[in-house]
Order: sequence, then structure tokens, then C-alpha cells
Amino acid sequence: MGRVTERRRVIRVRDGVIDTRADTLVGEEPLEIRVNGRPLAITMRTPGDDFALACGFLVSEGVLAERDELARIAYCAGATGPEGGNTYNVVDVRLADGVPPPDASLARQVYTTSSCGLCGKASLDSVRTTARWPLPLPAGPAIDPAVLAELPGRLRAAQRVFDRTGGLHAAALCAADGTLLDVREDVGRHNAVDKIVGHALQAGALPLRDALLLVSGRASFELVQKAVMAGIPALAAVSAPSSLAVDLAAEAGMTLVGFLRGTSMNVYSGAERLVGLADTAREH
Amino acid sequence: MGRVTERRRVIRVRDGVIDTRADTLVGEEPLEIRVNGRPLAITMRTPGDDFALACGFLVSEGVLAERDELARIAYCAGATGPEGGNTYNVVDVRLADGVPPPDASLARQVYTTSSCGLCGKASLDSVRTTARWPLPLPAGPAIDPAVLAELPGRLRAAQRVFDRTGGLHAAALCAADGTLLDVREDVGRHNAVDKIVGHALQAGALPLRDALLLVSGRASFELVQKAVMAGIPALAAVSAPSSLAVDLAAEAGMTLVGFLRGTSMNVYSGAERLVGLADTAREH
Repeated sequence: MGRVTERRRVIRVRDGVIDTRADTLVGEEPLEIRVNGRPLAITMRTPGDDFALACGFLVSEGVLAERDELARIAYCAGATGPEGGNTYNVVDVRLADGVPPPDASLARQVYTTSSCGLCGKASLDSVRTTARWPLPLPAGPAIDPAVLAELPGRLRAAQRVFDRTGGLHAAALCAADGTLLDVREDVGRHNAVDKIVGHALQAGALPLRDALLLVSGRASFELVQKAVMAGIPALAAVSAPSSLAVDLAAEAGMTLVGFLRGTSMNVYSGAERLVGLADTAREH
Repeated sequence: MGRVTERRRVIRVRDGVIDTRADTLVGEEPLEIRVNGRPLAITMRTPGDDFALACGFLVSEGVLAERDELARIAYCAGATGPEGGNTYNVVDVRLADGVPPPDASLARQVYTTSSCGLCGKASLDSVRTTARWPLPLPAGPAIDPAVLAELPGRLRAAQRVFDRTGGLHAAALCAADGTLLDVREDVGRHNAVDKIVGHALQAGALPLRDALLLVSGRASFELVQKAVMAGIPALAAVSAPSSLAVDLAAEAGMTLVGFLRGTSMNVYSGAERLVGLADTAREH
């Protein structure tokens, strides 16, 4: 079974001094996600939390939104590697009776663009049509910017693997008062968020109406989309958002904060949830 | 048409001071890649270099390896947005006569795992079987570690968009003497590499036997795979590689350098190309 970290020999060069040593690397292996036995997607991920990753992926795609829609989830028994043991790299998600499986266009990662050119607006529309909750997201919770400012430090302290490998993205789910509810790491930033969301689905906690999501890197369209699909009202990123991430957050009524560093931050949308910024938001 | 950067209003919080201003964000829009008129993949990318991005993607997938295999490439004329203009988000790549189009399993992003469990070894095998050049890569060129040490600074100086947005990954193609041959930026790190490789294909420069690739972030399996498919003998990353990235580089005979910072670096494979490290590599 794949591991969260693996050891490899490395030649280190430090100011002209050369030595060799064992280095700890973040593990990366493929994970195939099947639904009702049919292959749907393959993602490169850091092993661990695989069931949550698969569930979170399916929440992002609009297939799952409630715990009861999931019948069971298991590693495929027939997925054996070169040495005969299970690879633990193929997960099969069985949907409850009556839950529609994803259609073939999802498996093809292609949606039709026959009637209109693919554009940013089409991407925004596709989120609205696949979302399992009404959009825009409802008001609340109230979030103190001073609480936000403390979160990157808490996330960093909670990252177990990053310190050893330097190779992991992290995502954290937090209460509005700053309490860390969950922290997940992965070689792929989207996987870290899927793991968070999948655990929440398995706990029956979706939609995550009162939580906020913190990510260690940038805020792309894909990350905002995943937060929207989990019903999360606020996303904070340590680094920059993209234009389409901001547009989606604004359309979905989500609070989007970027460049969260020290006591500084940029608020791109949904400032009305931030204590002390409501007036500015109205003028905005 | 989508733009490389876009402006949005932002509320800035700096040490308790709140103001609003226009902020420059990195542009992100979907790009649909079609081959001979059939949809193959959609990627979220920063607009610009779209033809190169599509070509580079097809090099990574083993569909293209030589300029003559590409007949022509164009934006789909029928891809119009809400206001009627072309979205410039759908690109059609026409292959030359006799060039096999990608098979359906590529469009489905799923390859069969019937006979064995999906594992890291299967991922390595799939690169070997789709590579258009013999692996392992041939010896050379000789690379001076002192040249490597200068590259991150040169890449940063050449990044045009990052300074304005803070939101872009970058990739650079360099000669063995450190000369920057090409620099591309994108909201997705894999896209930045695809743009580099696609431009090289269009210039008839594949395989890139004497060049090295520098990436601004981490080195994942996917990035090593893209470099292998372009015939690039050396990949240097500013941050950490994953375990499978190291395994693929070692199997493909590629030099993989990580944590390239100042005069320090970690050499994970292919140290024999680095001047002064050949002896250590033999003991390694």
C-alpha cells in the first residue's frame, strides 16, 4: 500500500559541499475512482484518506450531497499489484438506490459546447446547474478578520507531513471562531480539499453552512467550485485568486479572501460576512 | 477574448486600515482542446499561447512528437459566447494524414486496470509505452551546478505577469549554459510546461535533447512525465518533488533537481550530468 511519505537517496549540494543522505518525500500514487463499479476518474494523490477523497470528488461533481446517498465504499479486491498484494489504489463508491450515477460526459471530462462557445460564463453556469444547494449561499456566519489572520499559522502548525517533505498542499476547515475542525494534506491542492469535503459528507455535515475553508496556496476556479459544492460560505487563501475564482465566488455569494498574510488580506467578494467590513462592502 | 490579466475591485485590509482599490488578477478561463474536430479535454488556463498549450498537451499524451504531424491548428469559428463573439476558448488541432488520433480512453481520462491494480509502477509503465523516443534518455548535456543556481533568479526576472498578480506558475526552457530559451506562465503549472513544449514542437525542436526545464514550484509525477515526453534530459524545481516524480525521473534517465535555492540543491536522479557530481553519482 502506498504511503504518505517515502524515503529516497538524494545527493545534497550545500555551498559547494556534496553529501548523500536519505530524504523524506511526499508519496504520490494514482487513485482510480469507480462509481457502481464503473471507472470514472484517475487522480494522482498522496495515499491516505482515499475514501474521503473519492467522496469529496463526487460532492464536487454534484453526484453526492448527503451521507444517505452513499451506500458503501471499498478498495477493489481485484486490484492487485506486481507482487500480488492489493494496491489500494482503486476505490469503488456504491451509490444508494435511486441516486443517479454520473453521466458519461463527466467521465470524459468534456461537456458539450455545441450551442455556445466555451467561456468563463459557461463555467459559472455549470456550477449553478450542478450545485445541490440553492445559490447564492445564505448569509452568515459573521467572521472576525482578526480570527482569519491567525489561521495560516494554525494551519502550518497542524501540517504533519509538510515539515518533513516540503511537498504538500494543505486545506483546513475552520469554525467561524477560528477553531480548526479538520486539516488534510495532499500533493494536489484539489485533493486536499476533496479530502476535507469527503470527511464532512461521511459525517453527515454537508452543507458546511457555518465553516470556512483555508487553503495553503492560490485560489483557482476549481477550489472555489469545490467549496461552493460543499456549501462552504467562505474561502481564504494564503496566495492570489484568479479572475474566474473571484467571479464564481461573487456569483455564489461566497466570501473570498486572498493574500492572507499576517494582519493583511484582500477581500474579493462577500465582505458583508467580515466583521467591520460590512459598510465598506455596501459601498463596494 | 480572455485576457492574461483582469481587473477586479478588492477591499484591502492592512494593519486595520481598510480601503478599496482595483486589483490585477491572473486571468483564468476554460480551454477545450479538440483533435480532428472531436472534443478531447478541457483545461482551466490563463488565456494566451493557446495553440502551443494544445500542442504541448498532445505531446504529453504521445499524440504529437514532430512538427510534420501537425497539419493545422485554429480556434473553432462556431465557438461564440453570450455576446456573439468568438470566445477563443475552443481550439481544434488537425493531425497530418496518417497520424493516429488519441483513443477514447484518453478522452475518458481513464486507462484500463483490468489485469492489474493501478499502482505507481503502472504509471511508470504507461509513460514508457507512450513515449515517442527511446528511454532511458541519452547521456548529456553536461550541466554546471553553478549555472543551475542562477536560474531561479533569471526565471523570476523574466516573469512578466507574476509581479502584477502573484498568481502564476512559471516554466522556463534553458540551454545547458543557462541561457533562457523560453519562459511561459499560467495559472496551472502543467499548462506552463505544455506551453513551453508546444512552442518547441511548433518550432520543430523536439526532442529537446540539450535543454533543461525549470519550474517555479514542486515537481510532480505529471511534470516529470511532460518533460520525458518532450525528450528533456533535466528538470529543476524550486520546491520538493514527489516520490513518484523521483521514480519516473530515475527510470527515464532524467536529471531531477529539487529545492533549487541559492547555491543549494538536492539531486534526486541523473547526477552524472552535473559537473563535479559524477563521482558522487557513481557511489550513489
